[in-house]
Amino acid sequence: MQKIVTFGEIMLRLAPPGFQRFSQARAFEATFGGGEANVAVSLANYGETVEFVTRLPNNDLGDACLAVLRSHGLITSHIARGGERLGIYFLETGAAQRASKVIYDRAGSSFASLQTGCFDWKSIFAGADWFHWTGITPAVSQGAADACREAILAAREMGVTVSCDLNYRAKLWKWGKPAGEVMSELVGLCDLALGNEEDAEKVFGIKAPDADVTAGKVETAAYRYVCEALAKRFPCLKTVAITLRGSYSASHNTWSGVLWSNG
Amino acid sequence: MQKIVTFGEIMLRLAPPGFQRFSQARAFEATFGGGEANVAVSLANYGETVEFVTRLPNNDLGDACLAVLRSHGLITSHIARGGERLGIYFLETGAAQRASKVIYDRAGSSFASLQTGCFDWKSIFAGADWFHWTGITPAVSQGAADACREAILAAREMGVTVSCDLNYRAKLWKWGKPAGEVMSELVGLCDLALGNEEDAEKVFGIKAPDADVTAGKVETAAYRYVCEALAKRFPCLKTVAITLRGSYSASHNTWSGVLWSNG
Amino acid sequence: MQKIVTFGEIMLRLAPPGFQRFSQARAFEATFGGGEANVAVSLANYGETVEFVTRLPNNDLGDACLAVLRSHGLITSHIARGGERLGIYFLETGAAQRASKVIYDRAGSSFASLQTGCFDWKSIFAGADWFHWTGITPAVSQGAADACREAILAAREMGVTVSCDLNYRAKLWKWGKPAGEVMSELVGLCDLALGNEEDAEKVFGIKAPDADVTAGKVETAAYRYVCEALAKRFPCLKTVAITLRGSYSASHNTWSGVLWSNG
Amino acid sequence: MQKIVTFGEIMLRLAPPGFQRFSQARAFEATFGGGEANVAVSLANYGETVEFVTRLPNNDLGDACLAVLRSHGLITSHIARGGERLGIYFLETGAAQRASKVIYDRAGSSFASLQTGCFDWKSIFAGADWFHWTGITPAVSQGAADACREAILAAREMGVTVSCDLNYRAKLWKWGKPAGEVMSELVGLCDLALGNEEDAEKVFGIKAPDADVTAGKVETAAYRYVCEALAKRFPCLKTVAITLRGSYSASHNTWSGVLWSNG
Amino acid sequence: MQKIVTFGEIMLRLAPPGFQRFSQARAFEATFGGGEANVAVSLANYGETVEFVTRLPNNDLGDACLAVLRSHGLITSHIARGGERLGIYFLETGAAQRASKVIYDRAGSSFASLQTGCFDWKSIFAGADWFHWTGITPAVSQGAADACREAILAAREMGVTVSCDLNYRAKLWKWGKPAGEVMSELVGLCDLALGNEEDAEKVFGIKAPDADVTAGKVETAAYRYVCEALAKRFPCLKTVAITLRGSYSASHNTWSGVLWSNG
Amino acid sequence: MQKIVTFGEIMLRLAPPGFQRFSQARAFEATFGGGEANVAVSLANYGETVEFVTRLPNNDLGDACLAVLRSHGLITSHIARGGERLGIYFLETGAAQRASKVIYDRAGSSFASLQTGCFDWKSIFAGADWFHWTGITPAVSQGAADACREAILAAREMGVTVSCDLNYRAKLWKWGKPAGEVMSELVGLCDLALGNEEDAEKVFGIKAPDADVTAGKVETAAYRYVCEALAKRFPCLKTVAITLRGSYSASHNTWSGVLWSNG
Repeated sequence: MQKIVTFGEIMLRLAPPGFQRFSQARAFEATFGGGEANVAVSLANYGETVEFVTRLPNNDLGDACLAVLRSHGLITSHIARGGERLGIYFLETGAAQRASKVIYDRAGSSFASLQTGCFDWKSIFAGADWFHWTGITPAVSQGAADACREAILAAREMGVTVSCDLNYRAKLWKWGKPAGEVMSELVGLCDLALGNEEDAEKVFGIKAPDADVTAGKVETAAYRYVCEALAKRFPCLKTVAITLRGSYSASHNTWSGVLWSNG
Repeated sequence: MQKIVTFGEIMLRLAPPGFQRFSQARAFEATFGGGEANVAVSLANYGETVEFVTRLPNNDLGDACLAVLRSHGLITSHIARGGERLGIYFLETGAAQRASKVIYDRAGSSFASLQTGCFDWKSIFAGADWFHWTGITPAVSQGAADACREAILAAREMGVTVSCDLNYRAKLWKWGKPAGEVMSELVGLCDLALGNEEDAEKVFGIKAPDADVTAGKVETAAYRYVCEALAKRFPCLKTVAITLRGSYSASHNTWSGVLWSNG
Repeated sequence: MQKIVTFGEIMLRLAPPGFQRFSQARAFEATFGGGEANVAVSLANYGETVEFVTRLPNNDLGDACLAVLRSHGLITSHIARGGERLGIYFLETGAAQRASKVIYDRAGSSFASLQTGCFDWKSIFAGADWFHWTGITPAVSQGAADACREAILAAREMGVTVSCDLNYRAKLWKWGKPAGEVMSELVGLCDLALGNEEDAEKVFGIKAPDADVTAGKVETAAYRYVCEALAKRFPCLKTVAITLRGSYSASHNTWSGVLWSNG
Repeated sequence: MQKIVTFGEIMLRLAPPGFQRFSQARAFEATFGGGEANVAVSLANYGETVEFVTRLPNNDLGDACLAVLRSHGLITSHIARGGERLGIYFLETGAAQRASKVIYDRAGSSFASLQTGCFDWKSIFAGADWFHWTGITPAVSQGAADACREAILAAREMGVTVSCDLNYRAKLWKWGKPAGEVMSELVGLCDLALGNEEDAEKVFGIKAPDADVTAGKVETAAYRYVCEALAKRFPCLKTVAITLRGSYSASHNTWSGVLWSNG
Repeated sequence: MQKIVTFGEIMLRLAPPGFQRFSQARAFEATFGGGEANVAVSLANYGETVEFVTRLPNNDLGDACLAVLRSHGLITSHIARGGERLGIYFLETGAAQRASKVIYDRAGSSFASLQTGCFDWKSIFAGADWFHWTGITPAVSQGAADACREAILAAREMGVTVSCDLNYRAKLWKWGKPAGEVMSELVGLCDLALGNEEDAEKVFGIKAPDADVTAGKVETAAYRYVCEALAKRFPCLKTVAITLRGSYSASHNTWSGVLWSNG
Repeated sequence: MQKIVTFGEIMLRLAPPGFQRFSQARAFEATFGGGEANVAVSLANYGETVEFVTRLPNNDLGDACLAVLRSHGLITSHIARGGERLGIYFLETGAAQRASKVIYDRAGSSFASLQTGCFDWKSIFAGADWFHWTGITPAVSQGAADACREAILAAREMGVTVSCDLNYRAKLWKWGKPAGEVMSELVGLCDLALGNEEDAEKVFGIKAPDADVTAGKVETAAYRYVCEALAKRFPCLKTVAITLRGSYSASHNTWSGVLWSNG
C-alpha cells in the first residue's frame, strides 16, 4: 500500500479502572476510540502509511486526542477542528456473567455537526490507494452521511479502493432517513464490504434461510448465501468478509471469519 | 433550622490527577459538583437537615451522583430522573502562574431540559424554613428559569425564607432573555442576596463610583454603596452579603466578606 | 415488601490491592463489610426499602461507614453511635492454589460492647414486614446476643417475618455460652433458616447419614434430611434454605442452593 | 557508638492518600511508626549499629512490620512475638488551617500486653553503649512500664548510657498510676532527658515563671530554668535537651532546640 | 540446614503495570530479581538461614536493593559495593496469545565487572552447609565466571555441598570462552545439578534419542537417559533434577519435575 | 520561522512518585527528557514547525520514546535507530532543604555510540532556518561531538542560523579532549550562545572581576563583561543570553535572564 485513509468519529472513552462498577468509580481511565481510528492505528502498527480524517473540537480535549493519534504515527494533517464538543462514551467492563455496559454521550459532537465541504478530499486521497469507512459514520447525522458520500465519490473518482464495515447500530440511526436507504447507496459504491450476519439482515434484509443469527454458529452454506446475496445486490463488491464473535462470558470470546471473493 | 432546601444543577466533574495538564491526562478523577449542591453538603456537615432538588438522567451516572448526595446525608427524595445526559465539566488545576482551566460540556443536560411542573414544590417545602438558589439556574435554560421562579413563588407562599447567590456567568446566558431582566424578577422575590461587585455590576448595572472591580480591593464605602443600591432596587432584601476573593496565584487565594443588614 | 430490617456488625475491611500479599502491601483498599449489611445493600439494589441497624463508634471512621451505608440508599436513622472502636478485618486475596487469608481484629468493637435497650425496636419495626439476622451477631458477645434476642422478640410481637442465616463461626463463640444453646433459642423464634450442612452439624448436631460435608457434593436425600430435621427441631420454621459453595481454586467457585418449604 | 538500643511500641499507621479526609478515603497508605523505632531508623541511616526491641503479634501484619524494620538495617533478633494484635493509628494529614487528625486504635496491642521477663536484657545490652526509651512506653500499660523499668535497670547495671524522651501523652496514661509518679522513678535512672516545656510542666510540674507554653516562643532564661530544675530533681541527669516546634499551619512548622549540659 | 549461601547477580526489574504494553507505559513497577536471589528468598520464607552474595553499585539504587534483600531476612553482610551501575531488565507481561517480552539492559553492571578476590569466601562459608549457583553467573563475564569458580572451590574445600542450576542463556555467553567448556569445569565440581533437557543439550550436547525438547512432553526413559548421561560425564553429581514447564498461553503454565538420585 | 531543528540525546527519565526517596520507591514514573528535545517540544507548543534529530535503540523503549515525540507534533523522520540501549536517568525530587538527586545511567547509549555520517544533514536542514544544539552533545562521546560539528557546518553552509546552549556538565566530559578545546571550535561557528556565568567560567575561563558565581546575584556590569568577553572570543556571536536561576529551596526557585545583542 502507498497510503490508506480512514474516516470517522473518534470519542473520549471513560472507563472505571479494573472491574469497578459505574457506581463505585472515583476515577475514569481516559482513552480515545472509534472503529475507524482503531483500524488506522492497527494498520500503522503493521507498518502501513495511514491517514485518519475526522473533526475535533478546538479545545484541549481535541488537542489531547490529536496528540494520541500522532503518537501512533498517523498522518493527521487533514483533521478538521471546530464544533461544540468531543463525543464521549462511558464503559463499564463486564466480568463473568455480568455484561459490559456502555453509556453513549455523543449527541452534538463536533463530528456529528460536520457538513459537506469540510474536507479537501482531493488532497486527502492524493497518493492514497485505499479508503475505509464504517456504517457508524452515516448513522451519526445527515451531515456526516453527506460527508461520507462525498468522500466515497472522491475516492472512486481518483481510483482509490473503497471498503466498508457495515457496523449497524440501531440506536444511532435517528436523523431521518432509514439505514437501509442510506447504506444501500453508499455500499453500492464500494469494492469490499465487511460485517456480520446481523448487519446484513438488519440493514439490507438479507438473511440465510433458517439461520439463527443469535446462536453464533452458522453453517458455511448460510455464509455463502449472505455473501452472494450482498454481491448480487451491490455488483461493485468484489469481496465480502464476515466476522463472527462467539461470546462465552464477559471476558471470554472467540473470533472467526469468512472471506468470500468474487474471482 | 428545621429544613433547608437548595435547588440547582449538579454536574460530573472530571479532573486530571494532581497538576497534570489536559494533554497529559490518562485518567480523570470523577466527582460531582454544583454551587447549590455544595451549599447543601456544607450545611449538612454543620448538622442541618437539608434537601437537595435537581434533575438527573435515568442512567448509571445519575445513580452514582445520587449515591454521593445520599452519602452526605442529604434528603434526595424529590430529585427528578429523566432527560438525556448528565452535564460535565473538565477541570485542569492550575499551579503558580498557570491558571486553572475549565471546559464546560453541559449543553442538553437533564437539568437544562426540565420544565415547570416537574417538581412538587408543596411537598418539598413542607417543613422547610429556608430555600436557596443561585443565578446559575435561571441562566441554564428557559425551562430551568421557569422552574426556579415556580420554586421561589411556592417558597414565598409557604413562608419560607429565600436566599439567592447572584453568581453571574456571562457564558451561560444564551437562551434568549437577558440576565438582568430575568434576575430582576427573581431577586425581587428574595429575602437575602449574596454576590460580589462584579455580579452587581454585570447583572444590575450597580457599581460604586470609582470602584475597580478587578483590583480585588474595594473600600468599605463602595461595598455599602452596592449593598444599599441592591436593597433599594429590591425592597424585599433584608440582607445583602458580598464575598471577595483575592487571587495571588493559582494556588494562593484570600477570602473575605461583607454583611449588610437592613435592620 | 414494605420494609426489610437487617441487624449486625459492619467492619472496616482492609485489603492489599490486587493479589499482593500482606508482606508486600504498602496500602490497603478500604471498604466496609458484614453479612447483614451486604444483604441490606443487595436488597436495596433490587429496589426494596431496607433499614440497617448496627452500632458504630462516634468518630470519623464511624462517620465514613455511615456515609457508605447511606450512599446505597439504606435507612440508617436507628444506627447507634458509641463504644471504643470499629471492628477491622484484613483480607489478602488468594490466587490459584494460594487461599485467601483473613486476619480478624474485631475484639472490643462498638458492636460487641452493645447492650439490650440500645435500640428502639418498636420504632424500627414500625412499617416493617421482614427482619433478617445471622449467627454471627449472637457469637460476638453476650450483649450482642441479648440485643439480637430482644430484636427477634420485638419483631415476632409485631408480626414481622424473621429469617436467620446460621453462619456458624467457631472462632467467634468465646463469650461463655455454647453456640448450640444460644442459637437453639433464637432459631426457635424464626420463620426461615438459611445455612449449609456444616452449620447444621456444628451448631445443632444435625447430620445426614453418610454425608461428607467437605466433599461439596451431597445428595438430594441428604439435603432433605437436614431440612426436615431442622424443621422438626424448630417447628416455627416454614422454610429452610441450604447454600452450597464448591471451591475449585482461590478464584474459581461454584454456587448452588436448595429450598425446602413446609407447605 | 558500638550499638544503640531503642525499645518501644511500633504501630501500623493508616493514612488516606494526599490530603484526603477520612470521609473520602477509599484506601489507606500503610506504614509502621513509633517514636523509638523512628529514632532507631534515623540512627541506622547515619551509619550506627542499632537494635530495636518491641513485641509484635505472631501474624502476617507482625511479619510485615518486622520486614520493614529489617529493611532499614536494624538488628531485630530480640523482637518478641505474641499477643493479640498490632496497634493501629489512623492519620488524616492536615492542610492550611485544617489540623491533622489522629484516631488511635491501640488498646489490647501485643506491646501493651507484655510482661516483665519477656526480654533477655542481658543479651540485648551485650556490646551496647546507649539505651533510648520514651515516655510513651510506661504510659501504655503497667506491663510495659514494668518492662521499661526492667530494661533501664539492666542497662545501668551494664554501664550503658540511658536517654529518655519525656513525650507526655495525657490520653494514654490510663492504667492506674499517675504519670508523674512512674516517670519520676524512671527518669531518675537516666543520663539524658529530652522533651519540651509542656512535658516538664505536665509530668513534673516544672514551669518557668511567666512562661507561656502555648506561644511557641520562650525566652532563654526560661529554658535554663526548666533544664536546671530537671537536673536538680534528677541528679543523675548530665544533659537536658529541649525541642521547640513552632506551628504556623498544618504544613508549615519550624524546629529549634536547646541543649543544657551539666559540665 | 545451618546456613545456605547463594551467589549471583540481582537486577532492577521494571515492568509496566498490569498488562500494559511498553508503548503504553507511563510508569514502571520496580522490583529486584535474579535467579539466585529468588532461591535465597524462598528458602528464607521456608525458615532457613540464608546468605546472599552479590555486588551492587555504591549508589541509592544499590541501597534500595540491599534494603529489599534485608527485608526478607537474608544475611547480606558480604555483599560487595562498587562498579558502575545496577543491571536492569524491562518486563512486559504477556496475556493470552501475546507472549511476555523482556529487554535486558545489564551490560557493564557492577556484578559483571567483579573480579576474583572480591569476596572473602572463607568467611562466607563459615558455618554454611550448602552453596547454590546458576549458569547465569559464569555467562555474564570472565570476572564473574572466575569468581564463581573461586567460590565453588572454597565451598568444596570447606565441605559445603554445591548445587548448580544450569540455566543456559545463549544470548549472555559473549565474553569469549564457550559455555560448554566453562560449565563443564564448574559442574564437574558440584554435588547436584538442576536443569531442563534444553540446558543439557545446548551446554553439554546430551540429548535423549528421539526426544523433542520443544514439545514439553518427554518420556520417562528420556529423562533417565539425560540424568544418567550427566552423572556419567560429571561423576561428582549425586543428584540430578529436571524441571519441565509446559506453556499453554502467556498466563497458563504447568510445572512438573523429575528427581534422579545416584543412590 | 519556517522550521527549527534541534539535535541531542533524549533519555528515559525514571522518577519515584511525589516526594518519595529512592529507598521508598516501588514504582518509577517514566517520561523522556533531554535539553534539546525539551526545547523542541516547547517551540512546537508555541506553534512552530520543529524537527528533532537523535538516535534511539531499535527496541520497544525506542519506539515508546518516538511515540511521545510524535505526540507533541515534532517532525521525527530523520531520527536514527540503532545502538545498544536508551540512556536512563533516575530522578528523586527534592523537598524543602533536601535537594533533588539524579543518578545518571547513560553510558553506552545509542546516542553516545553514533558516528559521523549517521544523519543526512542536507535533507534535515532543507527548509530550515534555525538549528539549536547544547554543550551536552559534544560532552557525551567523540562520535557525538563529531556529529554535532558535522551538523553545525552543514547548517552554516545552508544559511541556517545556529544557536548553542553552553550547558557545561563537568561529569560528562570524559572521552578525551577537554571541554574548552571542543566547545571553542563549535561555539566559534554559532550565531547565538546561551548559558550562565558558571558555563562561561568553567568552559572558557571567562569570569567577571569579583563576581561570585554561587551567590545567584550578579551585577549588571558583570553580565555585560561576560557577554562582551564571549562576543570578543567568538566574533560570529551576534547575541549572547545569560540565564540565572536563584534557588531558595528544592521547590522554590526564581528565574531571570539577560540578553546582550551586538547590534
